[in-house]
Amino acid sequence: MIEEAIQNISPVDHAWLERAAERQAQLTKPPGSLGALEEVANRLAAIRRSLRPEVFRQRVYVVAADHGVAAEGVSAYPREVTAQMVRNFLRGGAAINVLARDCGIEVKVVDAGVDADFGEAPGLIQAKIARGTANFTRGPAMTREQAERSVAIGVELARAAAADGVEMIGVGEMGIGNTTSASALTAALTGLAPEAVTGYGTGIDEAGWRRKVSTVERALDVNKPDCNDSLDLLAKVGGAEIGVMMGLVIGAAAERIPVVADGFISTSASALACLLCQNARDYIFIAHRSQEAGHGALIEFIGRRPLLDLQMRLGEGTGAALAMRLIGSAARLLGEMATFAEAGVSDRDS
Amino acid sequence: MIEEAIQNISPVDHAWLERAAERQAQLTKPPGSLGALEEVANRLAAIRRSLRPEVFRQRVYVVAADHGVAAEGVSAYPREVTAQMVRNFLRGGAAINVLARDCGIEVKVVDAGVDADFGEAPGLIQAKIARGTANFTRGPAMTREQAERSVAIGVELARAAAADGVEMIGVGEMGIGNTTSASALTAALTGLAPEAVTGYGTGIDEAGWRRKVSTVERALDVNKPDCNDSLDLLAKVGGAEIGVMMGLVIGAAAERIPVVADGFISTSASALACLLCQNARDYIFIAHRSQEAGHGALIEFIGRRPLLDLQMRLGEGTGAALAMRLIGSAARLLGEMATFAEAGVSDRDS
Repeated sequence: MIEEAIQNISPVDHAWLERAAERQAQLTKPPGSLGALEEVANRLAAIRRSLRPEVFRQRVYVVAADHGVAAEGVSAYPREVTAQMVRNFLRGGAAINVLARDCGIEVKVVDAGVDADFGEAPGLIQAKIARGTANFTRGPAMTREQAERSVAIGVELARAAAADGVEMIGVGEMGIGNTTSASALTAALTGLAPEAVTGYGTGIDEAGWRRKVSTVERALDVNKPDCNDSLDLLAKVGGAEIGVMMGLVIGAAAERIPVVADGFISTSASALACLLCQNARDYIFIAHRSQEAGHGALIEFIGRRPLLDLQMRLGEGTGAALAMRLIGSAARLLGEMATFAEAGVSDRDS
Repeated sequence: MIEEAIQNISPVDHAWLERAAERQAQLTKPPGSLGALEEVANRLAAIRRSLRPEVFRQRVYVVAADHGVAAEGVSAYPREVTAQMVRNFLRGGAAINVLARDCGIEVKVVDAGVDADFGEAPGLIQAKIARGTANFTRGPAMTREQAERSVAIGVELARAAAADGVEMIGVGEMGIGNTTSASALTAALTGLAPEAVTGYGTGIDEAGWRRKVSTVERALDVNKPDCNDSLDLLAKVGGAEIGVMMGLVIGAAAERIPVVADGFISTSASALACLLCQNARDYIFIAHRSQEAGHGALIEFIGRRPLLDLQMRLGEGTGAALAMRLIGSAARLLGEMATFAEAGVSDRDS
């Protein structure tokens, strides 16, 4: 299924980018004066193959999983918080719920590997790979089969979203310990030193940060992941939610649905998706510049400029929700603004 | 009326800032992880004196006027475009109309001094000071009485907005030639050289830019405005729309309504408002970092960090509309998120 999705991903058509740019030049505004909103709308037009690329139906997947590496004391919060926050998502009390209500975005919570049982609940998708990954300072976090399964789940979710008429997908996450995993992935993907791409996560102190850096160093040393093999990276130092998000990115690209990465961890999943299939890049938007140390390096790796810089570092898809609304506005500007001719406004050449 | 408004502006109450910060610390997120959204929500709470500072009813004023200085060839567009764009606003075809519809914001178009007649139109407020200002390279743009009248109109509009139940005001503008005016104001307010605060406006070329810098230099040389007297600055090198926006900021602060400055020109009006009454600063939000050269200096003058940086330079209130929606989201996060206790989530100390 992953292979089939990859084969369906083609780069966006440059002719549509040019058509959109021509339309932008006719709209009643100085050329380029809407800045990043013009770039965003033009790429949406190319993805959707339409000069009215409106994206009204939007969905955020909040993918949750536990991490064995949490046992190394790399987080400011206890491991139970992953499951507790999933319950908070399902009851609508978390930041992503408030923002999704405000932005008119549907929320789906995916249990990709939380160490707890939630039973049936509206909005919950059960897709548990395991009750948490193994501690990757001692060996791989997942088997290669588990890693592939997590990606396939994401691809399948994107396919189901397309069938539901979803026009834009956001990916966010929850998982105590997962910034450690994202830092290990970032170091492996970019070749940067662990200390350069390891941040303070939910708010650890200096001693905690040094412990976290050394954890990332040990993870890479023990597992020696193949930096050109995204599934090897995912299995050895990734996580189940990272695999599902990676699959969502690949599946969205295969369905020609724009996909918005939230912060550090979801961007690491997007980077893995780009490593697996370079063309996926055309479908990815980076929501915001996270406060996490390694995010900038991942943004450069993918080569997309983030839309927002609000010093956020919460995850859950919170930045994605805000960016998706902004992307929707960019699309409406392209689709709905009057042209110079329609409005009887003199262009600069007149 | 201006004097009365100024006397009604008090700094926000620090006790409310502290109450809001305490509430933020109880919400289910790592402390500070919502970044700028937390600062914004806390200031809103202090302005509205409520821990649920929702701002559902929002209005943008697009204030338009012509400028005598346009005769110096400082713009890429002919002077008629001001009136043509006002008609575009009234028909709903401009960028601000699309964004306001998307963001659920009401638009009011104010004719503060356009060189054309529009008759009666829904959404149009007639408040013409003159049919354009005088060319300020030869003498003052307005008389002091005209300048005061423009500010009083803005104060009155804010008062009417308060009576209508408006909870947040955005200020935007349209006026061919008005970046030249804003550059002159910025040079005078900050002491920076005209060439450091003069930009490319709607998109002039290098020769046009040099002409514009020299125009600003002549304006300051001929008029010698008193840099400590905001009404003298406004009269000599300002404009009617800048005066109305300045009055809107003062009036909003007097009514304890948060007010969002859009780009370079509306920020110059906000800076004049701060010069007239320092406490107004507490009520001002800067929507975005404009591409215009002088905007950064004005942002420093006011001392508020812009929320967005999307390389926009359109004006009209377009950045304000996007920022107002973001501010609304920040307010809802503070008001609606569950606390650790309510959600049964372990805090970091547990």
